[in-house]
Amino acid sequence: MGLVKMSGHLLWGGRFRSSTEEAFAKLNESLSVDFRLWPYDLRSAKAWATVLARCGVLDASEERLLHQGLEDVGRRLESGEWDAADDEDVHTLVERLLYDQIGEPAGKLNTGRSRNDQVATDLRLWCLDAVQSVDAEVAALGQALVMQARQGIDLVLPGYTHGQRAQPVRWAYVLLAHAWPLARDRARLKDVADRASELPLGCGALAGSGIAVDRELLRESLGFRRLSPNGLDATGARDFVAEFLFVLALASTDVSRLGAELLTYASAEYGFVRLSEGYCSGSSLLPQKRNPDVLELTRAKSARVLGDLVGVLTVMRGLPAGYSKDLQEDKGFLFDAVDAFLLTLPAIRGAVAEMTADSGRMEAALDHTLLATDLADRLVSAGVPFREAHGLVGNLVQAAETLGRPLTDVPVETASTIHPELPRAIASLGTWVDSIERRATAGGSSRESVEVQIDHLSREFGLPAG
Amino acid sequence: MGLVKMSGHLLWGGRFRSSTEEAFAKLNESLSVDFRLWPYDLRSAKAWATVLARCGVLDASEERLLHQGLEDVGRRLESGEWDAADDEDVHTLVERLLYDQIGEPAGKLNTGRSRNDQVATDLRLWCLDAVQSVDAEVAALGQALVMQARQGIDLVLPGYTHGQRAQPVRWAYVLLAHAWPLARDRARLKDVADRASELPLGCGALAGSGIAVDRELLRESLGFRRLSPNGLDATGARDFVAEFLFVLALASTDVSRLGAELLTYASAEYGFVRLSEGYCSGSSLLPQKRNPDVLELTRAKSARVLGDLVGVLTVMRGLPAGYSKDLQEDKGFLFDAVDAFLLTLPAIRGAVAEMTADSGRMEAALDHTLLATDLADRLVSAGVPFREAHGLVGNLVQAAETLGRPLTDVPVETASTIHPELPRAIASLGTWVDSIERRATAGGSSRESVEVQIDHLSREFGLPAG
Amino acid sequence: MGLVKMSGHLLWGGRFRSSTEEAFAKLNESLSVDFRLWPYDLRSAKAWATVLARCGVLDASEERLLHQGLEDVGRRLESGEWDAADDEDVHTLVERLLYDQIGEPAGKLNTGRSRNDQVATDLRLWCLDAVQSVDAEVAALGQALVMQARQGIDLVLPGYTHGQRAQPVRWAYVLLAHAWPLARDRARLKDVADRASELPLGCGALAGSGIAVDRELLRESLGFRRLSPNGLDATGARDFVAEFLFVLALASTDVSRLGAELLTYASAEYGFVRLSEGYCSGSSLLPQKRNPDVLELTRAKSARVLGDLVGVLTVMRGLPAGYSKDLQEDKGFLFDAVDAFLLTLPAIRGAVAEMTADSGRMEAALDHTLLATDLADRLVSAGVPFREAHGLVGNLVQAAETLGRPLTDVPVETASTIHPELPRAIASLGTWVDSIERRATAGGSSRESVEVQIDHLSREFGLPAG
Amino acid sequence: MGLVKMSGHLLWGGRFRSSTEEAFAKLNESLSVDFRLWPYDLRSAKAWATVLARCGVLDASEERLLHQGLEDVGRRLESGEWDAADDEDVHTLVERLLYDQIGEPAGKLNTGRSRNDQVATDLRLWCLDAVQSVDAEVAALGQALVMQARQGIDLVLPGYTHGQRAQPVRWAYVLLAHAWPLARDRARLKDVADRASELPLGCGALAGSGIAVDRELLRESLGFRRLSPNGLDATGARDFVAEFLFVLALASTDVSRLGAELLTYASAEYGFVRLSEGYCSGSSLLPQKRNPDVLELTRAKSARVLGDLVGVLTVMRGLPAGYSKDLQEDKGFLFDAVDAFLLTLPAIRGAVAEMTADSGRMEAALDHTLLATDLADRLVSAGVPFREAHGLVGNLVQAAETLGRPLTDVPVETASTIHPELPRAIASLGTWVDSIERRATAGGSSRESVEVQIDHLSREFGLPAG
Repeated sequence: MGLVKMSGHLLWGGRFRSSTEEAFAKLNESLSVDFRLWPYDLRSAKAWATVLARCGVLDASEERLLHQGLEDVGRRLESGEWDAADDEDVHTLVERLLYDQIGEPAGKLNTGRSRNDQVATDLRLWCLDAVQSVDAEVAALGQALVMQARQGIDLVLPGYTHGQRAQPVRWAYVLLAHAWPLARDRARLKDVADRASELPLGCGALAGSGIAVDRELLRESLGFRRLSPNGLDATGARDFVAEFLFVLALASTDVSRLGAELLTYASAEYGFVRLSEGYCSGSSLLPQKRNPDVLELTRAKSARVLGDLVGVLTVMRGLPAGYSKDLQEDKGFLFDAVDAFLLTLPAIRGAVAEMTADSGRMEAALDHTLLATDLADRLVSAGVPFREAHGLVGNLVQAAETLGRPLTDVPVETASTIHPELPRAIASLGTWVDSIERRATAGGSSRESVEVQIDHLSREFGLPAG
Repeated sequence: MGLVKMSGHLLWGGRFRSSTEEAFAKLNESLSVDFRLWPYDLRSAKAWATVLARCGVLDASEERLLHQGLEDVGRRLESGEWDAADDEDVHTLVERLLYDQIGEPAGKLNTGRSRNDQVATDLRLWCLDAVQSVDAEVAALGQALVMQARQGIDLVLPGYTHGQRAQPVRWAYVLLAHAWPLARDRARLKDVADRASELPLGCGALAGSGIAVDRELLRESLGFRRLSPNGLDATGARDFVAEFLFVLALASTDVSRLGAELLTYASAEYGFVRLSEGYCSGSSLLPQKRNPDVLELTRAKSARVLGDLVGVLTVMRGLPAGYSKDLQEDKGFLFDAVDAFLLTLPAIRGAVAEMTADSGRMEAALDHTLLATDLADRLVSAGVPFREAHGLVGNLVQAAETLGRPLTDVPVETASTIHPELPRAIASLGTWVDSIERRATAGGSSRESVEVQIDHLSREFGLPAG
Repeated sequence: MGLVKMSGHLLWGGRFRSSTEEAFAKLNESLSVDFRLWPYDLRSAKAWATVLARCGVLDASEERLLHQGLEDVGRRLESGEWDAADDEDVHTLVERLLYDQIGEPAGKLNTGRSRNDQVATDLRLWCLDAVQSVDAEVAALGQALVMQARQGIDLVLPGYTHGQRAQPVRWAYVLLAHAWPLARDRARLKDVADRASELPLGCGALAGSGIAVDRELLRESLGFRRLSPNGLDATGARDFVAEFLFVLALASTDVSRLGAELLTYASAEYGFVRLSEGYCSGSSLLPQKRNPDVLELTRAKSARVLGDLVGVLTVMRGLPAGYSKDLQEDKGFLFDAVDAFLLTLPAIRGAVAEMTADSGRMEAALDHTLLATDLADRLVSAGVPFREAHGLVGNLVQAAETLGRPLTDVPVETASTIHPELPRAIASLGTWVDSIERRATAGGSSRESVEVQIDHLSREFGLPAG
Repeated sequence: MGLVKMSGHLLWGGRFRSSTEEAFAKLNESLSVDFRLWPYDLRSAKAWATVLARCGVLDASEERLLHQGLEDVGRRLESGEWDAADDEDVHTLVERLLYDQIGEPAGKLNTGRSRNDQVATDLRLWCLDAVQSVDAEVAALGQALVMQARQGIDLVLPGYTHGQRAQPVRWAYVLLAHAWPLARDRARLKDVADRASELPLGCGALAGSGIAVDRELLRESLGFRRLSPNGLDATGARDFVAEFLFVLALASTDVSRLGAELLTYASAEYGFVRLSEGYCSGSSLLPQKRNPDVLELTRAKSARVLGDLVGVLTVMRGLPAGYSKDLQEDKGFLFDAVDAFLLTLPAIRGAVAEMTADSGRMEAALDHTLLATDLADRLVSAGVPFREAHGLVGNLVQAAETLGRPLTDVPVETASTIHPELPRAIASLGTWVDSIERRATAGGSSRESVEVQIDHLSREFGLPAG
């Protein structure tokens, strides 16, 4: 194995006699992962230059020079020409470019600052932006569901439990059942942002900064809510990463449920929805195929985010307080999960927005056993204890099956043998909508309850009232 | 395979011709897991009886009878005689005992109610209590850390990064670095409780209840903050379980870090702490052993909680909205994790409370390279840009190593060759505490910063001021 | 917290001044988990007594006494009276009962032996038996699938990809697609057993035994294939546990796929299979429900096994060689996973064995677009490059959709405009079985290929030829 | 959201009216992941062209043309100019380039072949190569350990259990304890390769190929051991991926243990080993730091591989047989894990090869309590039952601690009060090596046992005899 040529800039090395081994350098480098942090590294660097000037480490002209230099570095990084740089990490790259830009005064920037507090700060800033991006896309998916729900309020289909038809419900009700978890996930994202908004900068490598910088000023200028109160904790904690990853894992799990349920409904056998072609792909061998890949990938991506969550919790486990190099792995997990989810959300949102509901297929799936509970409730009204009523209607179901007839078409004599009230109960069942409206409790599938839900979620997701 | 004798009570069966196969019955039963829900099942049953009476399904005497019966069932369950019952689940057991107690009117209890909304309600009630138990134990561990920190404020030891000595810090500072994450975990537990406090009852099996019960009254009497707004969501969502499990996984990861760090410090080589014998065990073969098992098990248990988190997220993934039987597995994961963490916390708390710090071993571990950054800061004061100063002190470290002398004992001529200011800088380094106090930023290891932290965390964990 | 009363027997304690704290004792005890190891602990103890006698540590009468005592202890443990003992672990319990049985000579049993090599030996013995139990149940599920396949060889249904109808296949072919993975899982179980068959006994606590026992004799008498070659490795490695857990996780994942696919087919919308009632359960609220819980639970249990695998790998990670107490957690994961899978397999096997295929519903699901590839292949025979043929048939599918007619019923003029060969191709399509038999490659759905598979798998799973 | 411009080549589309939505296209594309499969895609394509010619689908000149075209495509792909292509996947890219190269006959290549059997074939071929690469690197790490062991056979240090000094052992013995698991992991890799060596090609999309290709010939020319026996299984199974990922997860866990143990030994407090500088990095703030990053990253990377394993098992769970688009995610997990492990192994191997053992620090860590078991064994020789001897020596340890003297320096009167044989036992303890050699069982730390191990592992890892 060869040694790495040390043409490059290093943030350390004075006490080293030897060069870095290539195999180690490859394992050690993180620029290929953390490059995307550069805008945050520049932001925190500028704030740091300001506080260094305040406490006299820099004079006014040096402060100006550093700020100008950092601006220029930003422009160079934006240009894309450094995307393939081979520095050790983004902090090294930024310092190197700064030297390149302004020469020796660049060496003053990191006075009293360590990569340990720096990277924790950069990553928290990145998270705060990423939470916003994810939140916006989650809300957009919520909007698409609510828009479909508005159109689907009068479509009736079987509601399912255990993968089996259970009771008639409104199509809107099913869609909203997938929208409510998104509202809770947004609340979780808000909590993530709140807890991430704690400033590590000024904690040094572990024990505080040797320069008496004004951390409160840093906090204000970088827009954090709190100072991190202990430097070992500030540089070694990644609970904010784990919490963000968890919310991504949970939200993508919630979205996987939507994807999987729509996948079932998009089958020829159910036929309740039809995806727009723009969200399908074909088969290389079977000319007729029109595959709902968007739904399958939505389901699958959640596994990836779960893997990332497992990774970060496993890395953290058993580490001492303070920075260990293991923590460098945090960004790989986090960026992968955010990327995967941000790739999924616009696709599933578009698929939801443009799918078509097939009211005919929905209605065709309604069969009369779905009214069995209504019958039991009727017997209850006639004074039969519910558990007994349940058993009697169960007997009726069995009888209907034996006769090969719909539940509502069992001969009166058979029904009345089971219970004399049954024929009357059957006769009064009414329409599917009647059955739905009989479940008029808040949170049920009745029109009023669904309208209340649509109103609430329209506000939640920022939709104008329908 | 045999059929199960149907001596027992069932909540269903009217439409079934055959008995349950034994192999399926064993897989299907959940009483061995959900038995512990009985107090919550009784609480929600009583509230349900009340609202059924309000809307006329029960008359006043039936309501009294049910309430009395449920009280009696509670007494019988408390007695322990039903711990080994073989009902399908806790709901079946409760209904069976209620029949046993009051006869046929028992069959009226579950009018308009399903196990789907029932179990979701019971489990949320259980969670709300469990969050409190966990929170109290987390706070108690926090107290133990703060108490030790109060005693350890003037003990100085090396702070470590990368498992290597880095800078001198106060022992209290290290302990508090493990206490702060607990404070954040408590905030997360509060969020878990808030989101868990949503009442599913009254949502029926999926579509709302056929009985027009007053859910608002239910909510008040059971102490929930909100009604769940959609029945498919209410019965099929387990995000509250996943979120609780995540916070348990994260908090037990945080605690694993404390355990692992103390394990290092309890080794003969470090010798910074000595555990009380009551938290150690011996070896069956090696008579001298005094093993810090409490720390190892603390580390290990977090893996178990992580496994439970993975389990529940995996179960949820890809399920349609509404209840699927898969969700029955949620309780196994949740109970296992809560049990494991509640087993761990009192043990590690006791071990922390009763461990002894060895100030001599701590001091002996301080070596003069820990002052390298102080030297660099001195050069900065003399106008050397930090990055250059870092390199120069690095050279000094290398020179000291070559000479086999402490950093502070490099001959003046050698040091001044590296930089003329170095000898003076070395001469002015002062004591370990001087070095610590030079890092006077908020969040650092200075006495004042540590005192502020102790005050804050004393309040956080409910300790009287020291 | 109180101290634990030390009424009990301990394998250590001579160097301890204090008693064990209760909170620690509860965390530390493992008897509630490892009790089931007692038969293996006795087996290894007897073998150990024999080798101790061979090298003179025991005289002949002591050896007889120990053997007799261990036999008696086994009888007492079998009686069930010690199921609720509160010893520290199974090894302590066994030694205590042995003292109880034969007095002071019991203290000679563990000469030169440590719990570290003892528990690794016991657990490997347990694994070897458990692998066999799991293997037998996997084979039994395989048998059930093959038996159904024999009956279903001439039932034709759509084969699915992406959850969409793709091409006609035999029902047997689908069933066998779930049987083949089981055959591979059995091969993996065999590998697990082979690697588990390595004897740790005689390695002492870490460094070898101070008594020059004949390990080769131990190996033979306990039926292991190899001696573990390094004591630190032998006592600290749990890769055999992880590997077994992985195979359980993979096999239960394979079985989850069977469960999930049957769940789809058992829906009213597909209706391809009907479960026997003995494997279904009902709803507490909906009288008509007949839920395929066995399939849902089969799917769900695999999540549990995955959680256990994650747990054990996480525990192992980063531990030094040799025994750490963390490893005590291994058994919780392993036993849980084996129990869960052994609970699942007989149930899903029974469900498969007793389910009914509905040939009518299967046939009804066949639609003519499933023959699109056959058409493309016909065009290929007529000299059209396949990619072009694929596109032309795609156009035909689109035309059929526009016309609202089956693919095979597109007017000749329309078809021939797309390609002049198409009408002839359509006319020659033949039956569903013709289409299947046109895919006559090995491994396809043709009758011959399916028969070959049935023969092979019948042998694999130990079924007499059909 | 815009539509994707369909400038590109597609393997499907004839039945589609609309273009692909951009958001979906981004989610759907896999070229950024599967690009690296191109050499395998070309290999299988050539084999396919050959069998197509054999069964008359291609004439000899077409076969030549396709082979030549595929060669040319290979050259173009090797050039790197297509690394940033934006095709849907690698199969599309290859077909497009082939069209580009040879025109319309390119459309004949995929006659009777589907991406489903194609990608499964390509990925298995890739795995077979990747297993070899990983195996070679695992063996190389094994070599480095054995080489160090050869040099360290006479260095003595404490062996540890529970992170506490336990008994004296040879340094070689510790190193070999980390080498043996690698040997087992290599055996597992062999099993992975064997099971991966099953050819899916010729299975079509799910039901077999419509062209009667000679699969046996394909198998031979591509070097597989077996034909996959069922097309639904062949295209939908990813157990070979999961098994490979498991072995990677386990092996990286094994390697993490080595990394973590060396990390402890590289601390100032232990000081048993010193890493070469080429495997360390420095601190941006602390000039003296020389951090063992290679060991920390080795520990951390195993978490990543575990996350990947969780991901793939989660993706597979609950899928029906046959291809679902979810399976596209398999490659992301697999490639990430293989990359991470192949990045880690050369670095840790180099670090092991070049680290220095410090015999002085090792010896200094030996304290006399490590001989407690030797004392107990002496009492056993004098007829004291071991359990009693253990207790007596425990008392001696306690007495020594109380007196603040080494175990071997307890006054004779004190020792003989505990047991009259103890003074003689103490006097005869001898050197550390004497103690080691008293544990002369196979697999122990004696010189002979260690030499046997070195011989065996030298052969295992392909080292010439030392």
